[in-house]
Amino acid sequence: MIAVDAMGGDFAPQEVILGAIAAAQQGIPVCLFGDQPTIQKIIIERKLDISHLPISIVHTTQVIDMGQEPTRAVLDNLDSSLVAAVNAVKNGQCSSIVSAGNTGACLAAGTLMIGRTPAILRPAIGNGVPTKKGLAFCIDLGANPDSKPEWLVQFAHMGALYQQLFFSIPNPRIGLLSNGTEAYKGSKANKQAYELLKTAPLHFVGNVEPSDIINGAVDVVISDGFVGNIFLKTMEATGSLMQHFITQTVASSWFDTIWFGLRKSLFRRVKARAMYDQVGGALLLGLQKPLIVAHGCSNAKAIEQAIRFAHKVVQERMIEKFNQKIAQLADVIKPAAPLFSSDFKSSENLN
Amino acid sequence: MIAVDAMGGDFAPQEVILGAIAAAQQGIPVCLFGDQPTIQKIIIERKLDISHLPISIVHTTQVIDMGQEPTRAVLDNLDSSLVAAVNAVKNGQCSSIVSAGNTGACLAAGTLMIGRTPAILRPAIGNGVPTKKGLAFCIDLGANPDSKPEWLVQFAHMGALYQQLFFSIPNPRIGLLSNGTEAYKGSKANKQAYELLKTAPLHFVGNVEPSDIINGAVDVVISDGFVGNIFLKTMEATGSLMQHFITQTVASSWFDTIWFGLRKSLFRRVKARAMYDQVGGALLLGLQKPLIVAHGCSNAKAIEQAIRFAHKVVQERMIEKFNQKIAQLADVIKPAAPLFSSDFKSSENLN
Repeated sequence: MIAVDAMGGDFAPQEVILGAIAAAQQGIPVCLFGDQPTIQKIIIERKLDISHLPISIVHTTQVIDMGQEPTRAVLDNLDSSLVAAVNAVKNGQCSSIVSAGNTGACLAAGTLMIGRTPAILRPAIGNGVPTKKGLAFCIDLGANPDSKPEWLVQFAHMGALYQQLFFSIPNPRIGLLSNGTEAYKGSKANKQAYELLKTAPLHFVGNVEPSDIINGAVDVVISDGFVGNIFLKTMEATGSLMQHFITQTVASSWFDTIWFGLRKSLFRRVKARAMYDQVGGALLLGLQKPLIVAHGCSNAKAIEQAIRFAHKVVQERMIEKFNQKIAQLADVIKPAAPLFSSDFKSSENLN
Repeated sequence: MIAVDAMGGDFAPQEVILGAIAAAQQGIPVCLFGDQPTIQKIIIERKLDISHLPISIVHTTQVIDMGQEPTRAVLDNLDSSLVAAVNAVKNGQCSSIVSAGNTGACLAAGTLMIGRTPAILRPAIGNGVPTKKGLAFCIDLGANPDSKPEWLVQFAHMGALYQQLFFSIPNPRIGLLSNGTEAYKGSKANKQAYELLKTAPLHFVGNVEPSDIINGAVDVVISDGFVGNIFLKTMEATGSLMQHFITQTVASSWFDTIWFGLRKSLFRRVKARAMYDQVGGALLLGLQKPLIVAHGCSNAKAIEQAIRFAHKVVQERMIEKFNQKIAQLADVIKPAAPLFSSDFKSSENLN
């Protein structure tokens, strides 16, 4: 059963509920965590019959909003939809969590309640982004701003393992997202990570720029969580800008307007290739159980896809297999002793 | 006369020479700095007649390549095309510099030889990026990775002044590029800058995500140089990805292929709105003289546009007016004393 945080996200609870119902209609058991009267009101207003669906509701009284500082938000809202959902997975009542809410709070709740995979310093958000040659697996897409060099190296190990296990890429090419391909380019943390990655047992190809990623030059992209998030969101925003430019330009000619009307399916197909809600949410790798972070602005379709993805992750035992492999590689993945102590000190940065 | 670094850029010297000749044909006096035999060979091979054009060549013996550490590269290559071009502006023989070469080396040469605008801690690259409602002026687009909070505040002052002076926006809305709009989001430096910006005499609207920028929510976008560079390059790369998706999707239908062939002008118009080489190079703000950084992968058209932009900057005395205003605002722009000392210590970060 997938635990769904019904109150998390810009369009929650309505879009989350509709997405969860759509997933349940496909036979995926779902448990909605949130304010029961609100959830039932929406179901009644929309005249939805869920009596025959594998869907249940667990009432919670608190909501973590986007503006709250993550660790504080978790500790102050133990009866929130998110914390209750995470707790249900911790206790084994549910198999995985889907939330479109506060990403930092997801990370904090996951780390504090479910726990990290042994040897992993920081869980990180990983997902495929579209390129001209398929998908590149990008990690971290937003969990860890100000990532330390040794975290970035672990992201590389996690990304490589993900591509090996689930996409059968034997020796994934790994690139470090930077402002230039030269070794001296990048932030201080990036430059230090570059040096560590050079000697790591990975197929590290060096720094990559956004155009290299789009051209399909690498299978895994490593980045600081802040930078990776800007990268992902800029791709999405630029897609919307291009659509705007095309629509405006088309509207200036009656001939194009007619054609555009006739060929709507063409642009739907273009959009489908570029759209992120087709991929569903992103996995938080480095936790003991599956936690899927959906986009804050997810609509019902995106939530449905995220739940389907969570279902697949559970069915295929992806996180179990991933963590088993991490345990086998622990000696390789663990940074040397002095780096551990620096990580320990930095635990105040959890948000 | 515009000093052009003929040897800088991925497609130098050929594309730079062709771009410079195109600008000279429009009556803009240009001086090419680079290896004279190589430059003349290209001109002869292409059967170009430059005898009647306002174009001159200054022979230099060294080239700074993209892989060199910037400050070292400048100090070790005093007879390079870039350093000679910057020197010509310093001595008053030329009025401004255009280079598509090593950005870090441009910053280092500009800072060391021409000098910073008094009160400005770090020169930064600023340029307009296309949005649904015109352009947003983004600063810093690549000069300063690991920007300190007080530098970010100065970028805000410089960006606001640029929009006031040259785009007649009386009270520009300023956003800080971040991974979320909430105040707690962002890197450590961003969060500190947020606090400083809240009390600065600026129209600071808070953190902005890429979608806010694209939707035209702000007039000025502030970012760390590393992050700003990733933002800009991701926009460019995504534009190319969308074009790829459209071309591929169109090719799967004979009807669309014919229409696409007939309506090439439509996509040219879309591209023109999104293309960055139409805007020309970006200004390095915070220097005493105009230095224009063109994209490393500039073709002849982009170089021509950058030279035209440099010419406009000189004709309209933009840097003079800008620096006069900065001098008037020095007391507002200068950070408090303790911040200065931290800047002083960090001068080893110049690259």
